[in-house]
Amino acid sequence: MNLEVVTIGTELLLGFTLDTNGAGIGRALAALGIRVVRRTSVADRPVEIRDAVESALARTGAVITTGGLGPTRDDITKRIVADLYGWPLDFDETLWQALVERYRRRGRIPAESNRSQAEVPRGATVLPNQCGSAPGLWLDGPRGLTVMLPGVPLEMEHLLTDEVVPRLAARGGGSVIRSRTVRVTGIPESTLAEALGEIERDIAPLTLAYLPGLDGVDLRLTAWDLEPAEADRRLAAAAAELRVRAGEVVYGQEDEDLAALVLDAARRAGVRIALAESCTGGLLGARLTAIPGSSDVFVGGAVTYADTAKTALAGVPPSLLAARGAVSEEVAAAMAEGILKRLDADLAVAITGIAGPGGGTDDKPVGTVCFALAGGGMTASSRSILIGTRSEIRYRAAQAALFLLLKRLRLSFPGPELGRARK
Amino acid sequence: MNLEVVTIGTELLLGFTLDTNGAGIGRALAALGIRVVRRTSVADRPVEIRDAVESALARTGAVITTGGLGPTRDDITKRIVADLYGWPLDFDETLWQALVERYRRRGRIPAESNRSQAEVPRGATVLPNQCGSAPGLWLDGPRGLTVMLPGVPLEMEHLLTDEVVPRLAARGGGSVIRSRTVRVTGIPESTLAEALGEIERDIAPLTLAYLPGLDGVDLRLTAWDLEPAEADRRLAAAAAELRVRAGEVVYGQEDEDLAALVLDAARRAGVRIALAESCTGGLLGARLTAIPGSSDVFVGGAVTYADTAKTALAGVPPSLLAARGAVSEEVAAAMAEGILKRLDADLAVAITGIAGPGGGTDDKPVGTVCFALAGGGMTASSRSILIGTRSEIRYRAAQAALFLLLKRLRLSFPGPELGRARK
Repeated sequence: MNLEVVTIGTELLLGFTLDTNGAGIGRALAALGIRVVRRTSVADRPVEIRDAVESALARTGAVITTGGLGPTRDDITKRIVADLYGWPLDFDETLWQALVERYRRRGRIPAESNRSQAEVPRGATVLPNQCGSAPGLWLDGPRGLTVMLPGVPLEMEHLLTDEVVPRLAARGGGSVIRSRTVRVTGIPESTLAEALGEIERDIAPLTLAYLPGLDGVDLRLTAWDLEPAEADRRLAAAAAELRVRAGEVVYGQEDEDLAALVLDAARRAGVRIALAESCTGGLLGARLTAIPGSSDVFVGGAVTYADTAKTALAGVPPSLLAARGAVSEEVAAAMAEGILKRLDADLAVAITGIAGPGGGTDDKPVGTVCFALAGGGMTASSRSILIGTRSEIRYRAAQAALFLLLKRLRLSFPGPELGRARK
Repeated sequence: MNLEVVTIGTELLLGFTLDTNGAGIGRALAALGIRVVRRTSVADRPVEIRDAVESALARTGAVITTGGLGPTRDDITKRIVADLYGWPLDFDETLWQALVERYRRRGRIPAESNRSQAEVPRGATVLPNQCGSAPGLWLDGPRGLTVMLPGVPLEMEHLLTDEVVPRLAARGGGSVIRSRTVRVTGIPESTLAEALGEIERDIAPLTLAYLPGLDGVDLRLTAWDLEPAEADRRLAAAAAELRVRAGEVVYGQEDEDLAALVLDAARRAGVRIALAESCTGGLLGARLTAIPGSSDVFVGGAVTYADTAKTALAGVPPSLLAARGAVSEEVAAAMAEGILKRLDADLAVAITGIAGPGGGTDDKPVGTVCFALAGGGMTASSRSILIGTRSEIRYRAAQAALFLLLKRLRLSFPGPELGRARK
C-alpha cells in the first residue's frame, strides 16, 4: 500500500516549525509496510490545500493530512476535504456535548467558534481525540481514503497510534518495511563506498543508503515489502556482510551513541575514565555526561584551554609546551598522563588541536588535532587533520577521541593489570 | 516571488531524518520576502524526483532542491534535472581539479565514483561548496529556475547563505517579510506574557510570537509585506518597547548567543574566566569555546564529576563535601573559589546539581542546581530548581550560569580592582 502525507501550516513553510508530524507518520507507517511516497507541506490556504490533497488522492488513493482542524479561522482542512468528497457537513450533537463537557471540566465554556469542531462530513468516521478538542476524521469513499489529523504533535501522535495505525494495519497485507543501520566513523564516504564494493548488487532486493553526518557515516539497509521474517533474515545477513566489508571502522548499530558504547565498555571492564581537553573545551566531557549513569565510569577532567591551565590542572611542564607547542603529540601525551595521575583514573584521553578559524600555520593547519591515550602503563598518541568548520572540527575531534577509547577498551580491556574490578 | 522546495531523500519519508533543510530554506527566503508556497519531499527515485521538480516548475517557475548530489549511487538529482532542462552533462576539469586538490590536502585521492561530482549541466552555474565535495548548481532557463543544493545540512546552509540568498535577493521585488527577535532567559513564558501586557495590540500590524526553547524565550516580531524602511522603523520601535516591558531578563537580540555575549563583556572588562562544572560535565566550557577567539578570555576549567575530582582539581575540602553534600551552595562556592585560585583567573563560575533521572531526594529533587560566582574578593551562590529531562536540565544550568556571568560583568565590571587590563 502506498500513501501520501499532506502537512498543513504556514509556519511549516516559513520554517519556524520542523515537520515532526510528517516524520512521525513516516516511521509509524513504515513499520506497517506502508510506503509514504510523497510528503507535501502547504500553507493554510484553501487553494493549496485542495490541490495537494486532490493530487495526492489521484496518485495513490490514500492520504493523511495534519493540521487545520482547530477552531481558529485558518483551520479549514475539514471543509475542503468534505467538499472534495462531495459530502455535506452535519452538526454532531454527541461530539458537541463531549466538547462542552471537556471545557466544563476545565471551568470554561466553549466559544461559538468551537461549534465548527463538532461538524462531521456525512459518511466520515470520527476518531476521538483524548488530548485535545479537534477529533480526527477518517473518510473512505470513491475518491479514496483521507485521514485528517490535528496539527498539535501530541494530539496527532495519540490519534496516529491509537486510531490510525490499527485501522491501516487491518487493511494492509502481510509485508513490512524494515531498516537496520550500521554506524561507522573515521572514514570518508567515498573510501567507504570503495571498501563496500558492489554491495548494493549483493544485498538486493534490500537497499543501502549512505547517511554522512558529524558522527561518521550511517549505513542504512532497508527491506521493502517483504514478509517480516524474511525481512529480518535478509537484514541480519546484509548487516553482517556490511560489518565484514567495512571492518574496524564500524562502532555500533541503529541509534547507538558512541559515548554510551564507551561507557558500557568501560563499565564492563571496570575501567574509570578521565580526560583533558583543549580545543574541544568540554565537549567530550559533555558527551560522556549526557548519558545517565556516567558517574560510575567517568571521574572528571580538565578543560585546559590556556597553556597555564595545561600546567595547573594536568601538570604539563611549561618547558614541553615551549619546546613542542601546545598542539603536539608530546603535549597530548603529557595531558593524558597528567590527568590520569591527578584523578587516579584507569584510562585517560587527551585532545589538543586547532579548531580554527584562526591559529593555523603551514606546519599545523586548522584542523590539526593531536590525541593521546594513557593507561595500563602505556601512552599512545596520534595526530589527525580534521576537516570542516570550527564546530565540525571540535565535534569530530570529540568523536575521534571516543572512538580511540572504544577501540582501546574493546581490544585491550579487560587486561589483568587494569580493571579496577579486578584490583 | 513564489518558489517551491523539493527535498529529496528516502530517509525523510521514512521519518528517520527531520527535514531541517526544508525549514532552513523557508526561514532564509522569508527574510527576502520570497514565499515558499509548497514543499515536497520525495524518495531517491528518479520518477518521483522528476515529477516533483517538473510540477513545481510548472506551478511557480522556481524550485530549490536539496539532496542527491553526492558521489554514491543513490545520488541522482543532477542527471534528472539536466535531462528535464534538455541540457547535456559536461565534465568540468576545473571542478575536478578542485576536488582532487581538496582530497590531496587531506592526504587522499578521490575515488572513481567522485568523477560524477565534476559533471555540470551545460548552461548551469556552479555554486562552490566550501564544506563538501558536491557543489550546488543554479539552472536558469526556459523551464524556469532550478537551484540544486546538497542534502548534508551544513553544506546546504553554507551554499544557501553564501550563494543562493544573494542571487535571489538580486531578483526580488519591493516588499519584504522581516523579523526581529528579543531574547530573554530565566523567566516562565506565562510570567513574561503578564509583564508584556497588551503588547500585541500596541504593536499592530506587527505580530509577536513567543518561541520558548532551552535558551529561554525568544520574542519574535514580524512585519509582513511592508516596504523595507517602514518594516525596519516599526520593528525597531516595537523591539524597544519589548525591552522596556520585559526588563532585566532580556539578554540579547536576533541570534545572539549568550556565551558570545559573555565573552564580549569579559573582553571589554579585561576579565579572564574560569569554571568548575559538575552536572553539566563540560557543557559550559563547550559553549564558551564554541566561539572563535574565546582563548583570550577563557582560561579553562575543571569537570569535577566525581567528588574526588572536586577535591583534586578545585580543592574542595572532603569535609565540606561530607558535611553539605556535593549539591550545595557551599560546595558550589568552594568549587568557584578553588578554580579561580588554581587558574589565577578574575571571575569563576561553578555548577553542581542533580540532572537526573536518578539521584533526586525529597530535600534535593532532580533539577536542583547550585551555582556560585567568585571574583573580585566576593563569592555569591544561589540554588534553583530547573525543569525538564536530563539534557534540558543540563542545558538550562549552563545557560543560567552564563546569565549569572553576564549580569555580573554588565553590572559590576569593569571594577577598579578587577580588570586585568587595568592592573
